Amino acid sequence: MVFLKLGGSLITDKSREATAREDVIRRAAREVRRALEGKPGLKILLGHGSGSFGHFVARRYGTREGAGDERGWRGYAETAAAAARLNRLVTDIFLAEGVPVISIQPSASALCRAGELVRLEERPIEEALAHGLVPLVYGDVALDEEWGCTIVSTEQIFAHLARRLQPRRIILAGTVDGVFTADPLRDPRARLIEEITPANFARVEGMLAGSHGVDVTGGMLSKVRRMYQLVLSQPSLQVRLISGLRPGLIERALLDAQLAEGTLIHAEPARQGGG
Amino acid sequence: MVFLKLGGSLITDKSREATAREDVIRRAAREVRRALEGKPGLKILLGHGSGSFGHFVARRYGTREGAGDERGWRGYAETAAAAARLNRLVTDIFLAEGVPVISIQPSASALCRAGELVRLEERPIEEALAHGLVPLVYGDVALDEEWGCTIVSTEQIFAHLARRLQPRRIILAGTVDGVFTADPLRDPRARLIEEITPANFARVEGMLAGSHGVDVTGGMLSKVRRMYQLVLSQPSLQVRLISGLRPGLIERALLDAQLAEGTLIHAEPARQGGG
Repeated sequence: MVFLKLGGSLITDKSREATAREDVIRRAAREVRRALEGKPGLKILLGHGSGSFGHFVARRYGTREGAGDERGWRGYAETAAAAARLNRLVTDIFLAEGVPVISIQPSASALCRAGELVRLEERPIEEALAHGLVPLVYGDVALDEEWGCTIVSTEQIFAHLARRLQPRRIILAGTVDGVFTADPLRDPRARLIEEITPANFARVEGMLAGSHGVDVTGGMLSKVRRMYQLVLSQPSLQVRLISGLRPGLIERALLDAQLAEGTLIHAEPARQGGG
Repeated sequence: MVFLKLGGSLITDKSREATAREDVIRRAAREVRRALEGKPGLKILLGHGSGSFGHFVARRYGTREGAGDERGWRGYAETAAAAARLNRLVTDIFLAEGVPVISIQPSASALCRAGELVRLEERPIEEALAHGLVPLVYGDVALDEEWGCTIVSTEQIFAHLARRLQPRRIILAGTVDGVFTADPLRDPRARLIEEITPANFARVEGMLAGSHGVDVTGGMLSKVRRMYQLVLSQPSLQVRLISGLRPGLIERALLDAQLAEGTLIHAEPARQGGG
């Protein structure tokens, strides 16, 4: 069992509202289909970020921090619709490319507490996997017992589902090759960090907190932290960050647990095998 | 609290696959918005059928009766996607017309047993209503403990939610004026039945079973049966079937519980008031 996330920055143009990169989504769909053909019995849970669909709207209304009034709840509805609109595109492209995805709306059952996901209906996902389908989740709005509402990321949903589904690997496909010592899009001296383990996590955390702009940092730092905490609690799990822009890499990462590409986050001091 | 369903035959062209009647959906959205403006505090739960989106695909794969093999589960995924595609259109048109709808995917939490809905996550719907939003559900696929999978109608979802949400009224808007003694589209002598109560239910049931073609019968007869059973178990509830093709009727039905249009299904011998 593998969880695969297609990052919001990978599948949308993050600088323009509600603009999907349909060519990237289609190529990713083909790579997933080829991986399923190449390894019969491979179980995949798919997820995708909300990119320029949800984030623009959510920021406009402050939806992540809750909803205090009628306008705030209107923002909740608008953010939900934007996320679902991108999910519609992704679902239809994957189905057209022959991947039997079944989209499952997180906000139809999610419940958070101060921004942390505490409940999500798992059965439709488990049944889909049991019957050879590829369940598809996505970054979405969610109810929050303390804030009224919030946003849940695909990483939060993955971390929540990992406890029950016990995947061996999580693959996060973004626009860069993995975790860098500095922002690779701005700093030519940025170096790829090949492994993040208990031996270097504190150092990596310091680099990510210090070297990026606020927006990017929030994204990469919180992602790395969440995935690191997850591998600490599930030492048999490996998380790999790769670039989804390099053709064939998603397929290779799905098929080859040993693939030496991108950044591997794991709890053991040495590289681990397994599928 | 009112539940309003827009029938699949009303919002799609049932003779052509995946063809929405966007003008009808837009007019319905405006009528719902005007009703909300005309009666502040009015709580509405919306639902819509799947019409020519879901039904064509579901029939092709036999999804209502379950999924025995890989092809059957592929049908489940395709039917779910078709239903979600129509829901996307409806959600976006309602939002654009100023109705703060929040779509909630039934299959993300539904569980059936031999075709009957036994579980559905209610909290996102309750919270949406509590915060002035209009939750939107729709006819969808669902897991089934006996058959593997099935289809749930909006009427089934309404009946399930009515137990918890205790609406005073359910309005079902279709393409004809209500329940007729025969199929009004085929038989010029067909007469509108203004009320269905314990006093005439058995007779109505006989007429519906005898006078329609198999397809249409299944639809109207099972709808009337389900709603009749519901009002028997919740005598304070009234169900009204109206034509959504007559401009203004949805708005009037939402605002006026006494409106003498269409067919009223209720458990009491005389007409009841209430909002």
